[in-house]
Amino acid sequence: MKVNLAAKLSTFTDTYHPRIVGAFNDHDIMVVKAEGPFVWHKHDETDDLFLVLQGRLTIQLRDQDIELGPGELFVVPRGVEHCPIAHEEAHVLLIEPRDTPNTGDPATAVSKPQI
Amino acid sequence: MKVNLAAKLSTFTDTYHPRIVGAFNDHDIMVVKAEGPFVWHKHDETDDLFLVLQGRLTIQLRDQDIELGPGELFVVPRGVEHCPIAHEEAHVLLIEPRDTPNTGDPATAVSKPQI
Repeated sequence: MKVNLAAKLSTFTDTYHPRIVGAFNDHDIMVVKAEGPFVWHKHDETDDLFLVLQGRLTIQLRDQDIELGPGELFVVPRGVEHCPIAHEEAHVLLIEPRDTPNTGDPATAVSKPQI
Repeated sequence: MKVNLAAKLSTFTDTYHPRIVGAFNDHDIMVVKAEGPFVWHKHDETDDLFLVLQGRLTIQLRDQDIELGPGELFVVPRGVEHCPIAHEEAHVLLIEPRDTPNTGDPATAVSKPQI
């Protein structure tokens, strides 16, 4: 089944709550809406792929900011602290291994529904 | 380093010759231009992720055609025969494990330069 990313994104409004839209080699393919700051975190076991579909997203690293617009992607290497912040609403494609906690910490992570 | 996918795609014109633009969990992130038919093939060891960025791409399967436009993705499950065909030029994001032969067969695969 093909996935229309904009159609999936039109089904929800809450931010920093990823939805799973597909699977690939034991990874979840997700879409998320971002607005304002997320939290500083890292993933020790996985890289973290961000592809901006709409809007603008800044990936804050401890030593620089990565500014992403539509059609731009960035991979945060495993173990690297980062904090996404969107100064306007951004729609983002994420790919992470299945069951990766979005905050880097299972105690604070949100569940990620499949849509 | 962020990756602007359109900028990467503007640096070459040949079709069905993927360029590597990034890495993610032992996978290559690639962009490719497609026009006309590719070849029927399968990958026994990996799923195959296609995200159309521009144009239209049809993923022919043995029992159906998957028609993709911009912002639409499809994952061909491992072991499933498929043949992409683009009736107009399409620009596509691909993600596959490093060193996956694009034709499914190392004897006929193209090398994939990093750009």
